[in-house]
Amino acid sequence: MPHSATTDHSAPVLEELIAALGEKIITEPELLSSNAHDRSYHRWESPLSLVQATSTDDVSTALRICHKHQTPVVPRGSGTGLEGGANTSTGSICLDLSRMTKITTIAADDLYATAEAGVMKSQLNAALKNHGLHFAAGPGVDASVGGMAATSASGTTAVHYGTLKENTLALTVVLADGTVITTGSTTKKSSSGYDLTHLFVGSEGTLGVITEVTLRLHPLPKAAKVGVWSLPSLEAAVQLVLASLRASLPLARVELLDEITIEALQKYNGYTAAVTETLMIEFVGNAPEVQTNYAQFAELAAAYDAAEYAATTDPAESARIWQARHDALPAAVALVPGSRPLATDVCVPVSQLPRCILDTKADLEATGLLAPIVGHVGDGNFHLAILLPPDDPAAWTKATQLSQRLVDRALACGGTCTGEHGVGIGKVASMAQEHASALAVMRAIKDSLDPSGIMNPGKVLAAPVS
Amino acid sequence: MPHSATTDHSAPVLEELIAALGEKIITEPELLSSNAHDRSYHRWESPLSLVQATSTDDVSTALRICHKHQTPVVPRGSGTGLEGGANTSTGSICLDLSRMTKITTIAADDLYATAEAGVMKSQLNAALKNHGLHFAAGPGVDASVGGMAATSASGTTAVHYGTLKENTLALTVVLADGTVITTGSTTKKSSSGYDLTHLFVGSEGTLGVITEVTLRLHPLPKAAKVGVWSLPSLEAAVQLVLASLRASLPLARVELLDEITIEALQKYNGYTAAVTETLMIEFVGNAPEVQTNYAQFAELAAAYDAAEYAATTDPAESARIWQARHDALPAAVALVPGSRPLATDVCVPVSQLPRCILDTKADLEATGLLAPIVGHVGDGNFHLAILLPPDDPAAWTKATQLSQRLVDRALACGGTCTGEHGVGIGKVASMAQEHASALAVMRAIKDSLDPSGIMNPGKVLAAPVS
Repeated sequence: MPHSATTDHSAPVLEELIAALGEKIITEPELLSSNAHDRSYHRWESPLSLVQATSTDDVSTALRICHKHQTPVVPRGSGTGLEGGANTSTGSICLDLSRMTKITTIAADDLYATAEAGVMKSQLNAALKNHGLHFAAGPGVDASVGGMAATSASGTTAVHYGTLKENTLALTVVLADGTVITTGSTTKKSSSGYDLTHLFVGSEGTLGVITEVTLRLHPLPKAAKVGVWSLPSLEAAVQLVLASLRASLPLARVELLDEITIEALQKYNGYTAAVTETLMIEFVGNAPEVQTNYAQFAELAAAYDAAEYAATTDPAESARIWQARHDALPAAVALVPGSRPLATDVCVPVSQLPRCILDTKADLEATGLLAPIVGHVGDGNFHLAILLPPDDPAAWTKATQLSQRLVDRALACGGTCTGEHGVGIGKVASMAQEHASALAVMRAIKDSLDPSGIMNPGKVLAAPVS
Repeated sequence: MPHSATTDHSAPVLEELIAALGEKIITEPELLSSNAHDRSYHRWESPLSLVQATSTDDVSTALRICHKHQTPVVPRGSGTGLEGGANTSTGSICLDLSRMTKITTIAADDLYATAEAGVMKSQLNAALKNHGLHFAAGPGVDASVGGMAATSASGTTAVHYGTLKENTLALTVVLADGTVITTGSTTKKSSSGYDLTHLFVGSEGTLGVITEVTLRLHPLPKAAKVGVWSLPSLEAAVQLVLASLRASLPLARVELLDEITIEALQKYNGYTAAVTETLMIEFVGNAPEVQTNYAQFAELAAAYDAAEYAATTDPAESARIWQARHDALPAAVALVPGSRPLATDVCVPVSQLPRCILDTKADLEATGLLAPIVGHVGDGNFHLAILLPPDDPAAWTKATQLSQRLVDRALACGGTCTGEHGVGIGKVASMAQEHASALAVMRAIKDSLDPSGIMNPGKVLAAPVS
């Protein structure tokens, strides 16, 4: 349980942290509050202090001390989460990993790299470029490798390259009492014991702190072709994607942007496209197969009255298109000046996607809420950003109720309450609904690895009633 | 701890099992001994009884009763394991899942199928054929889906399709006390809580009994080309594979068979190929890309003095070639009449493969042991089958010492003690060596989910000293 608020340097835990880690312990109120939350709308309070770790040893030292004092620890990567996973409470320690920025290994022949938790995806990919390689998974927003692994992140490329689950080979993890372990191996596969790597990937700092990540790499594709397609309806867009998947077209990305999102992008960054339901797609590979696959998609698209708005094999132009997609959330927020977004995601089996999206659209219309929809539709994953006045509790209540109905709807068609944002604070209440008796297993594992409950309490699993 | 040997029907656990499950409880000595072991050389004793479960309910009932009586339970699929994972001890219950043969769902649009644990890979693929789909992962030997998931199996196709880790979406699991849980979901991805699916995949029945598996499916490839290539040396063969991986050739399979294996296959099933180090390769996809990729491989192969022995796009001829590969173990055994194999596998980063295989070959020669080598070389995974006289303890000692040196060698170059056979009994002693302080985390998880230690004791983790 969080201790009571204090910035009293004589608090025993703080005294001991300062003695051990000196200037890495920060208590300036502005820094505390700016590091107390992610990009979500979820509640937060300033922590007792910030620990600016620069090594696994620092993390181990901090945890050993916090464990002794039963002080809650909230690990933090780049703070780009959307479900409050990095939000702190009064009395907790924010364990900032953003200064752990060493890329320790690039094994080009073996297609893996090992990086400290604070290395950003952009930094890693810049280092990999000379090797003709890239780290292909993860979200559109630039994020730290530790944060991506901790939240089992993914994004536009998951349909082709998988999520952080498929792309994490090994981890260094510091446990609640400061013990350092390594999980997995740098081999492509292993059947040696319990898969601890996958247990920590997506555990959001509630079982231990990930301080180093070994990631699977891919050769940079020799060629790519990106297309922007205008569709007459959401239904047509999603059905076209399903038809492409049935035809085994190897889509490297396939993104749905609804007409509200396109309108928002036009205003936000001057992106031009017909204001209608839109699919952005990409094929990668060698040049001939890229052209063949794209042509096959175009054939299918004709049957759904889709019109090609843009197509390019130029890397700079492709990057502009994908940047537009990645700007969808800030663009949505800018659409309603002064608004804040309630951003949420669910994931369903792809066959259920048309129904689930259309029912959600109808729900939004009935509720009178404005929410652009974008989706990694090849994975059955889609996002709402419900745009709300910050100080209108009734609107927020209406939005959280709609968000709950979205979860109900996703679960009813065999889906999951979050495809990639993680549980954080925002989806904790949905865990029992989704996992039923398996939740007790998650709780048993949590209790066995963190018996004092100091690791990011209240995230993923509800804090136990004390 | 195992109870003392008995087939006394008045044993309280047996009495209660018979009362609850009637004719599904088997105590005939011949059936007990034939179900007491897998295909390995590891020790076994006949169990107290065999439970022929036909449903998840049966499994739950059996576990509830065994839990009450603290009776060890050893789950069994098709019995094709190679590390003793299904071997029973005196006083234990063999929980036979081979009668759970229902395929409960084939979701063609969503590319998944759900099957009971006893469904064989061949049965599943026969049912999928009409849908134009297949379950592409798993070993060459026909095996049950429950057993494959429990051991995190893989085989020749892992280089392209991944292992059971990447291909298992969801599970039904019965816990030690009989509680039934479901893990994962039928969506392509999820960030909802701890990844229990991956925790149970590869846990070899030590954390719970997998009774239903939801597997990822793939469309049957439109075309395939298989080639058999003769290489002048092991080193050349492995270097050619590395060069192909560096060139991003999408090999669907790439198998090394050493000259002893080829000789064995000629004698065993009349397979013809030049008696030399051999690579069997396959490309899949649409016909033009298959031809292009194969031609690129052929170009690379020339640089390593490789000669094409056979090439085919004919499915029946391809099947014959892969059947030869899958016969490697029985063919090896037939090479030395009356011998038994000590079969083992390790996996290393692919860049380490040439050194690791050549050092192992040298070690074999120095020791005077005969052991054909085959390898899933695209994954860095290779197998030895050391052929031994069954009743020569000195030879077996020599072989287990060589096997230990193989593990040492694999770990020294960043590898793992088992790439796909699992830990079972055979690799238990290597777990501390490979996992160091992470082993305590595995132990903590085991203790939290199976506090009485009745779930397949002594497998994966050493039985605690009582």
